[in-house]
Amino acid sequence: MKRFAKNMPLSLFVILSFSLVCTSTIRADTQTDPLPSWNEGSTKQSIVRFVDLVTKEGGKGYVPPAERIAVFDNDGTLWAEKPIAVELAFTLDRVKALAPKHPEWKQKQPFKDVLEGDLKSVLAGGGKTISQLVMATNTGMTVAEFEQIVSDWIGSARNPVTKRLYTEMVYQPMLEFLAYLRSNGFKTYIVSGGGIDFMRPWTENVYGIPPEQVVGSCIKVKYEMLKSGPVLMLLPEMDFIDDKDGKPVGINRFIGRRPLLAFGNSDGDLQMLQWTAAGSGSRFMGLVHHTDAEREWAYDRNVSLGRLDKALTEAKEKGWTVVDMKKDWKVIFPVQRKQEKK
Amino acid sequence: MKRFAKNMPLSLFVILSFSLVCTSTIRADTQTDPLPSWNEGSTKQSIVRFVDLVTKEGGKGYVPPAERIAVFDNDGTLWAEKPIAVELAFTLDRVKALAPKHPEWKQKQPFKDVLEGDLKSVLAGGGKTISQLVMATNTGMTVAEFEQIVSDWIGSARNPVTKRLYTEMVYQPMLEFLAYLRSNGFKTYIVSGGGIDFMRPWTENVYGIPPEQVVGSCIKVKYEMLKSGPVLMLLPEMDFIDDKDGKPVGINRFIGRRPLLAFGNSDGDLQMLQWTAAGSGSRFMGLVHHTDAEREWAYDRNVSLGRLDKALTEAKEKGWTVVDMKKDWKVIFPVQRKQEKK
Repeated sequence: MKRFAKNMPLSLFVILSFSLVCTSTIRADTQTDPLPSWNEGSTKQSIVRFVDLVTKEGGKGYVPPAERIAVFDNDGTLWAEKPIAVELAFTLDRVKALAPKHPEWKQKQPFKDVLEGDLKSVLAGGGKTISQLVMATNTGMTVAEFEQIVSDWIGSARNPVTKRLYTEMVYQPMLEFLAYLRSNGFKTYIVSGGGIDFMRPWTENVYGIPPEQVVGSCIKVKYEMLKSGPVLMLLPEMDFIDDKDGKPVGINRFIGRRPLLAFGNSDGDLQMLQWTAAGSGSRFMGLVHHTDAEREWAYDRNVSLGRLDKALTEAKEKGWTVVDMKKDWKVIFPVQRKQEKK
Repeated sequence: MKRFAKNMPLSLFVILSFSLVCTSTIRADTQTDPLPSWNEGSTKQSIVRFVDLVTKEGGKGYVPPAERIAVFDNDGTLWAEKPIAVELAFTLDRVKALAPKHPEWKQKQPFKDVLEGDLKSVLAGGGKTISQLVMATNTGMTVAEFEQIVSDWIGSARNPVTKRLYTEMVYQPMLEFLAYLRSNGFKTYIVSGGGIDFMRPWTENVYGIPPEQVVGSCIKVKYEMLKSGPVLMLLPEMDFIDDKDGKPVGINRFIGRRPLLAFGNSDGDLQMLQWTAAGSGSRFMGLVHHTDAEREWAYDRNVSLGRLDKALTEAKEKGWTVVDMKKDWKVIFPVQRKQEKK
């Protein structure tokens, strides 16, 4: 800029400056509504009102940008978690892919159920069974190898019901919400019970959230010096479960600041919302309530994975924002890529 | 900007724009040398050459800003660690402050040694003794309470040799280096064997590094719902030691990207440098070598805390940058505040 400004005639400079301002004026016009996929109503208003409150310089609710930390659960909050959680679908696919190397799995549970396609029995085993499958398939390799496997899988894996890529089953209104927060100086984080190593390879592309802003459950990792150089090996042992009580702990560990805004969709997010709500000044607590059986799924108190029961009760008591998916969201998923390319 | 630009007369706009450009011209002039406290020579050249290489758009070494991760050890790399590490000084002060509540400490080791001022015996106990002191004094309270204690202490505690505030014993050349990297799109992190909860309360003020960019050793934390609301309690148990093999593990866990640049000063940083060096493309590995007994301290292979032995050998073999403090640094510490206020 220095040399440029010195040598530039004033007239040219005026024209350049003026066109710059015109451009930004036009840009502002097309961005009047930063949340076009949200229907008008109290939910959308509560979001916009909160962002206005904390960003208005000199206002009583002003919060400096450095403290504008926004945390989002992932499964069921930023993308669909039905018919089963995406990471579980990945793990089941890994069992199938690795089965030829493990002939014993044909007779050994819970692998036998997976290989025979008995999803009901697998799910009946709960967290313990899932953890067993994860340890058998997502460890014993380097972090870099695992990252490659995840990247390959997520590039082509599809939801069995909608046949869409999983990465096309993110919620368009939440993508807009994330972008809106970032354009208002917020730092957006994922705080998920899902595996940190499973999410980090794709969150930047899909949500605009870089790996260092992803908090999740962690598998133990060990540094090893091989002849070929140093590697980080994934060990078959959990290190940290970033769910329920673990969410505020994970937030404190990874971020070291209390969030200004937290969004979840299940009882696994309750403590994260409580921890956020207990901060000083204004805070925003939100829940996605899955109420749309036609365009997505409808579930809350009566499911095991993704149950929204206590958190829904507490949200209503405390006046937290509850997104009624059916009522509040104009569209659920982004326009599919093919259509976008028209 | 929108409304403002619409209603502003063109003449006023020209003046405003022009003064904006003049301001930035002046700023650029005063910033010709971003590293004024570094003497000219191969060390300074290696830094500038690397930053130019990775930031030159279209160049063969170009690295996008998102991947410009720079990690720095803290003790002995960003601030002085003699006569004893600052966090140890803090912990010894905590033992003294808490002693009235623990009359049994007068007869109980290692507390007895601390209370009698027998530092030599305390240090002879090594990591196990220090860990015992840390667990007894830095836990059993909430994270927020501990943060307040650290903030109060760091605001007034002084190095026993120089009588300077510890926060005035940061290395001026490294402050410039951090700022230089940030102005070139790098994200600067601390990756320290020190306690994460001890560093986070002051790193933003002192180094411009926000809490979420501090990686360190962690004490176990538990979420508890009290009548007064939720708290995070520090438990008397280590969760993660961010030293030696732990540094690449911590980098992977907290950041999820391999650093482009790593700087340390002891064998505790060797694995972090190895891990950085093993990345693809150009990487920068640096060590601060304490060679200045007059202005700071001179030590390397023959000390227990802060030993620089294997890492120095490996750095020389591999051509990593070794900062010779005496030769490379024009000044060591910032001009003291009083003098600045003249």
